[in-house]
Amino acid sequence: MLFVVGLGLGDEKDITLKGLEAVRRCDKVYMEAYTSLLSFGLSSDGLSTLEKLYGKPITVADREMVEEKADVFLSEARESDVAFLVVGDPFGATTHTDLVVRAKKAGIDVRVVHNASVMNAVGACGLQLYRYGETISIPFFTETWRPYSFYEKIKKNRDLGLHTLCLLDIRVKEPSLESLCRGKKQYEPPRFMSINTAIEQLLEVEEKSGESVYGEDTECVGLARLGSEDQMIVAGPMKQLLNVDFGAPLHCLVIAGETHPLEQEMLEFYRLKEGSDHKENGTA
Amino acid sequence: MLFVVGLGLGDEKDITLKGLEAVRRCDKVYMEAYTSLLSFGLSSDGLSTLEKLYGKPITVADREMVEEKADVFLSEARESDVAFLVVGDPFGATTHTDLVVRAKKAGIDVRVVHNASVMNAVGACGLQLYRYGETISIPFFTETWRPYSFYEKIKKNRDLGLHTLCLLDIRVKEPSLESLCRGKKQYEPPRFMSINTAIEQLLEVEEKSGESVYGEDTECVGLARLGSEDQMIVAGPMKQLLNVDFGAPLHCLVIAGETHPLEQEMLEFYRLKEGSDHKENGTA
Repeated sequence: MLFVVGLGLGDEKDITLKGLEAVRRCDKVYMEAYTSLLSFGLSSDGLSTLEKLYGKPITVADREMVEEKADVFLSEARESDVAFLVVGDPFGATTHTDLVVRAKKAGIDVRVVHNASVMNAVGACGLQLYRYGETISIPFFTETWRPYSFYEKIKKNRDLGLHTLCLLDIRVKEPSLESLCRGKKQYEPPRFMSINTAIEQLLEVEEKSGESVYGEDTECVGLARLGSEDQMIVAGPMKQLLNVDFGAPLHCLVIAGETHPLEQEMLEFYRLKEGSDHKENGTA
Repeated sequence: MLFVVGLGLGDEKDITLKGLEAVRRCDKVYMEAYTSLLSFGLSSDGLSTLEKLYGKPITVADREMVEEKADVFLSEARESDVAFLVVGDPFGATTHTDLVVRAKKAGIDVRVVHNASVMNAVGACGLQLYRYGETISIPFFTETWRPYSFYEKIKKNRDLGLHTLCLLDIRVKEPSLESLCRGKKQYEPPRFMSINTAIEQLLEVEEKSGESVYGEDTECVGLARLGSEDQMIVAGPMKQLLNVDFGAPLHCLVIAGETHPLEQEMLEFYRLKEGSDHKENGTA
């Protein structure tokens, strides 16, 4: 049996009782470490906190392992109970769907334990989930690669008055260019896109495309470390959020569409007040 | 302090460790009973299962109580720790956002404990969450009230190739017409829209509107009791799902947009096989 267990968003205590029971009955426990970051998941300290709570040793499965060695843990799952731990919800990322498909094709029983993910927890900012359009991803621009494809999607959402959730790029275990040339694997340090960088790139695309889809006065909400004790939520125009220090990753950004009165009331709590220390924002 | 704790989707064990800790430290525990149904939440047996697990008596807060007596538990939350338990995630329904707004306005500290909700757990069917457009709600049609407003929203989603999540009507504690006339409160028995009824209504609207937004051959996914042990997921054209017995509530429906190969592979697992007992479908 393969258990795919969502860990939620905050820390080790965001696992559900059902998820914890599944982990404790498994013979082998893997944890994905590449589609998203959790403070408790990346440092070796965090891992031991998890291992202590779960009462099991955890094998961190990085990108190579999940893609190249999936057969290994799928064959383990055929013989015994194996848990695959996923930050957020199991179906938040394509990779995990792929894993489930492979397991099912191999005739292995799969049990999924759901949990919160950014896709629903973003409701914390007060913009109602049923009023979101297509979710977009903003990749790190490089000198030679500046894809603008998300711009049209934002345009379509805004034409319909819908909010847009922007997921921001995460680069973990990217092989360095130098190492690729030398044929020896070395990795770039991990990079997580900040809300500030996302807005800079959004404004660049708007300036180049010039269709007035949004601008520096467009209402947005920046969310950092959503679901954790020190989450930070700030609402305001792009030009204001551009200069807010949101602190450690993960960040995401919502471009607000048309807002209803209740949504506006909720956003009011997250606006910067004159002279306030905006680090106190948030509801978690 | 007011703790708004998401209970997730399946049963009492879908609460997170963080949520359980919050409930256990609270002096008073309320549970909403009207925005959605859980098998464990509606029967008196289910309630005692929760009370045993949480080690606390629970007061069920029905619609009248939340809307009329919110002041009572907000003033309790000012003096002590109060938990408000919500099926799914706290921000899945407008009512809870309203409660959070009222608490914050009253200067009460609010802590939110996130959990899975239909808005992200629907990813279980394999259609990727970032490819959904605006979510729609399908209300029970009556003889005199047959609103077609969701049709245009589905059209816009389908024009963009996006999937549409359809939330189906729940009628709990609706005052009966007779009781309204007599001025004495009596309630209709609870009603939960089935996938079959939803499709009937959808096809009626298509027939009347005639814009060929979808039809009986349009690919859909029906999901019943999402996240619970006996969840059922079936993919197929509307005309096929129309005759599937999905069993007990809650149901929801996805109208598929353009699908990618991985999405198609996942849907294959949920198609009815010749002569199969489709009750075995599902991954939970």
